[in-house]
Amino acid sequence: MIVFSDLIDAKNRIKPHVHRTPILTSTSINNFAKANLFFKPENFQKIGAFKYRGATNAIMLLDEESKKNGVTTHSSGNHGQAIAKAAQERNIPAYIVMPENAPQVKIDAVRGYGAEVILCPPTLEARETYMQSVIDKTGATPIHPYNHPHVIAGQSTVGQEILEDVSNLDYIICPVGGGGLLSGTLLAVKNIAPHVKVIAAEPMGADDAYQSWKSEKFIPQTNPNTVADGLLTSLGDITYPIIQENIHEIIRVEDTDIIAAMKLIWERMKIVVEPSAAIGLAVALQNTEMFEDTNTAIILTGGNVDLPKALKLMS
Amino acid sequence: MIVFSDLIDAKNRIKPHVHRTPILTSTSINNFAKANLFFKPENFQKIGAFKYRGATNAIMLLDEESKKNGVTTHSSGNHGQAIAKAAQERNIPAYIVMPENAPQVKIDAVRGYGAEVILCPPTLEARETYMQSVIDKTGATPIHPYNHPHVIAGQSTVGQEILEDVSNLDYIICPVGGGGLLSGTLLAVKNIAPHVKVIAAEPMGADDAYQSWKSEKFIPQTNPNTVADGLLTSLGDITYPIIQENIHEIIRVEDTDIIAAMKLIWERMKIVVEPSAAIGLAVALQNTEMFEDTNTAIILTGGNVDLPKALKLMS
Repeated sequence: MIVFSDLIDAKNRIKPHVHRTPILTSTSINNFAKANLFFKPENFQKIGAFKYRGATNAIMLLDEESKKNGVTTHSSGNHGQAIAKAAQERNIPAYIVMPENAPQVKIDAVRGYGAEVILCPPTLEARETYMQSVIDKTGATPIHPYNHPHVIAGQSTVGQEILEDVSNLDYIICPVGGGGLLSGTLLAVKNIAPHVKVIAAEPMGADDAYQSWKSEKFIPQTNPNTVADGLLTSLGDITYPIIQENIHEIIRVEDTDIIAAMKLIWERMKIVVEPSAAIGLAVALQNTEMFEDTNTAIILTGGNVDLPKALKLMS
Repeated sequence: MIVFSDLIDAKNRIKPHVHRTPILTSTSINNFAKANLFFKPENFQKIGAFKYRGATNAIMLLDEESKKNGVTTHSSGNHGQAIAKAAQERNIPAYIVMPENAPQVKIDAVRGYGAEVILCPPTLEARETYMQSVIDKTGATPIHPYNHPHVIAGQSTVGQEILEDVSNLDYIICPVGGGGLLSGTLLAVKNIAPHVKVIAAEPMGADDAYQSWKSEKFIPQTNPNTVADGLLTSLGDITYPIIQENIHEIIRVEDTDIIAAMKLIWERMKIVVEPSAAIGLAVALQNTEMFEDTNTAIILTGGNVDLPKALKLMS
């Protein structure tokens, strides 16, 4: 369904429009982890998260008629900003359905990118109903946050860049929420460097991917409870099979470990990452035997935090 | 007293031991400032601040006999860490006199670099008395945080790198506390690109440099009161004349503006900077007419904050 040329095409298509984020290293964090860690800081990506890659690829692939009617999505945060900005860059209307309990900084940001924000109750059902009514009214094209081949191909460019920039890699640790970034990473690795093992990092309080993988059948997420607010959603019917077939292992961590990893990144690397982005380091620090002396890339997915909320977590 | 070859020699000497920090830009902050801003993020420097440059240069220039007896300094923070780590790298003993009210994270960091920390009451007099007793006991060489030619030459490498990396520069905005970085920047500019105007950024609540510059005589700082805890000290008898002779202008800002600039840097650039480091952007944002459409470099001096304290400031 998504083939190697889709990944390469996505990379060439979005290249002029996204930041090529660097690879960062930290001697002191390597000492804690007993491993050579290579961080991919997508908090430095446009809109502060990797989601801009998939959104850009999906919007660029729309036909001219669809572009006129605009795009819509439901998102608790970064994907909404990504669609809003990628649409704004091309003068395309964007309608973003957001849960009322989304961080204010994320709602403000979406509006700042010129999109219309439609607030809805914080349930998946409400999100989908509200989005359908947007579609009925405007003819906008829905762009799913992760269960979408063009989005997955766009997100695969993170892994493609890692594989170009880090040699002799043993592992890539990638957070899993809906599985868009993880699917893209798995497909990039499968096609470019199949010896690299991809580890998914998932919060204990939202472990549908782990449960699905272990039971070998799709189990949706119900009542997620984690500080990693970018990782609340269920896998999709496109992302789940890619993950089930290609993943090396899914490792779960507690919220306290996520917060400790986040604090370490802020203090030692001097960069701002959101809790969901810190989960990869939490996995590495909780499993030092597994990663000892390896070359391991860790995807830092984004940096869009509400600072007062972050204070409360890290105090 | 400090000549061009001292600056060049310092650059070559410390090059293998320091990070060459990049130049960062932010479209959204440029929009706020109406200028093209080029940030030099010394929060990514070893020990999290530019001070590592001057400390490394000064310690490398010691003779073998002095190295055996070790080094000492008094410092409220970053310079202490810098001396501690630069000494540790060369297996030289380090004795750091620190005020009891220094942020705990900074005291811990100095100890983490293997130095002996001597706590003293938070007055300049106590610092100097305590340091003298260290010297009497150990024969350690004192390395002043800023009023020292080798330290100033080391700090000049920040400006040297900026001038290599940014073309058509109009201004460099540099924070001023004791004036070591500012003196180094002024000497670099004077020798390499004398058309560039150097602006010093100083907190309203610790404006001894401004007062000295205006009255054309050295006025020491008394009772400083500012959130920018790296900028509390007086100029020195080496730094003051360099500043008086070469500075284009000293601009003061209020603490509220420093905190607002700091928040903007954390939120938009996704990097952690300390209040003292954010003051340059505060100056740019408070004087948009002056900097409109210019190419202006801003030195972000460090990122060593106590996270709960920093987040409380910004909440």
